[in-house]
Amino acid sequence: MTGRDKGADLKPIGNTPIVILVRPQLADNIGSVARAMANGGLFHLRLVSPRDGWPQLHAWRTASGADRLLDNAQLFDTVDEAVADLHHVFATCPRPRHIIKPLLTARGGALEICEMTARNLKVGILFGPERAGLDNEDFARADYWIRYPLDPRFMSLNLSQAVMIMAYEWWMAKEETPARQLLTNETRIANKAMLENFLGHLFKELDHCGFLRNEQKRPGMIRNLRHFFQRGEVTEQELRTLHGVVSELVKGPRKSTDEK
Amino acid sequence: MTGRDKGADLKPIGNTPIVILVRPQLADNIGSVARAMANGGLFHLRLVSPRDGWPQLHAWRTASGADRLLDNAQLFDTVDEAVADLHHVFATCPRPRHIIKPLLTARGGALEICEMTARNLKVGILFGPERAGLDNEDFARADYWIRYPLDPRFMSLNLSQAVMIMAYEWWMAKEETPARQLLTNETRIANKAMLENFLGHLFKELDHCGFLRNEQKRPGMIRNLRHFFQRGEVTEQELRTLHGVVSELVKGPRKSTDEK
Repeated sequence: MTGRDKGADLKPIGNTPIVILVRPQLADNIGSVARAMANGGLFHLRLVSPRDGWPQLHAWRTASGADRLLDNAQLFDTVDEAVADLHHVFATCPRPRHIIKPLLTARGGALEICEMTARNLKVGILFGPERAGLDNEDFARADYWIRYPLDPRFMSLNLSQAVMIMAYEWWMAKEETPARQLLTNETRIANKAMLENFLGHLFKELDHCGFLRNEQKRPGMIRNLRHFFQRGEVTEQELRTLHGVVSELVKGPRKSTDEK
Repeated sequence: MTGRDKGADLKPIGNTPIVILVRPQLADNIGSVARAMANGGLFHLRLVSPRDGWPQLHAWRTASGADRLLDNAQLFDTVDEAVADLHHVFATCPRPRHIIKPLLTARGGALEICEMTARNLKVGILFGPERAGLDNEDFARADYWIRYPLDPRFMSLNLSQAVMIMAYEWWMAKEETPARQLLTNETRIANKAMLENFLGHLFKELDHCGFLRNEQKRPGMIRNLRHFFQRGEVTEQELRTLHGVVSELVKGPRKSTDEK
């Protein structure tokens, strides 16, 4: 699930939420965040007083081609300034807090954000510094709290992983790929008549070679083979190959020219 | 969404799928993979001929406490050996392939794996090398192909991010946290009688100070205030605070002792 693509044509599609990194410590992480954002179709990045200043060349190195997100990143001194033009602010934070706030899963949050952006509202998502997370003052600026369901025994999530999960859920909130399909390349799924045609071929040859000679067991053996060949979808191309397999097995070893 | 937790008590819960890294290149990534696995409740890691050999100290450095997963990682020479004891193998790969195979989203794949592991089947998920992904031979060992829905303009996914998404979906497949709730700390959501009690207090004081003196507009103004205060859930504690706010505003500026 890796490899490099050109990121030169990256630009926002419609009204996408803004990722706001609050006092991020490592430039490497800022770059990885940009890459994760691009994976999930996010574009707008805001930085609130990054520890080591901005820009930092290290970030471009780990962005793996998502340079345009970093080129367009906006710098702010405070969370208040970074959220001033927004209508809704979400805060991600894994720890229990003594607050009264709507609490969403990443999936629930993404759906909520999706509905807001569809209404042309500007939405931001706050991510705290690597070590300590958001402080209470910054957290109070948020309307919603997002906490990812994850293994409570090990909640230590890398900053770019945290952004990855939100970007992924943002993309999934609008995604329509069926959860399961059979990829058939250019051939089609065979219909029952085609399958029956193959099974007829197979049973005829099995009768011929004596594999089904036990008349009492014959119906059961045929049923069992039918069960096996009907277990999953089969393509027209695969049936052609199976016809060939049966025909060639019947012919037996092909005599090579130098064989007696 | 960061911070460090102890990973010392990490152990598999039930029958969890096995993450198989095929010829991973960077030890840093192997460590980040272990961390992401631990986030999503995965434990079993297999490595098929890591480029720089194994063990590599760098991996433990980036695992951020998920050491036990690395300590228990199993090393194999080939994919065939790594999958020999498994019943089902999934392969993650972002690129179109000329193959005929069931194709699943990460979410669909996680649900499928969840059903299989519940039947006590052993399941593995293959992840290819960072640069090139799985080759065709290794891919042919898999029963299912998982492709994440992500922005097609930027599919370059870091190896540990790819594992993070699967681990997250694995955890989510069994997760029961409601997508949305109001976190109320120790106080409860106020019922309508409590809200009405507060609104009565507010309207009485507004009548008293003359804010609602226009008899024609009074019903509409009251309705509008009611709409505002009923927009979201309110807690009992918040209502007590609001009662206090109204009472104190009515009293006007508190005279300090040295004021005339």
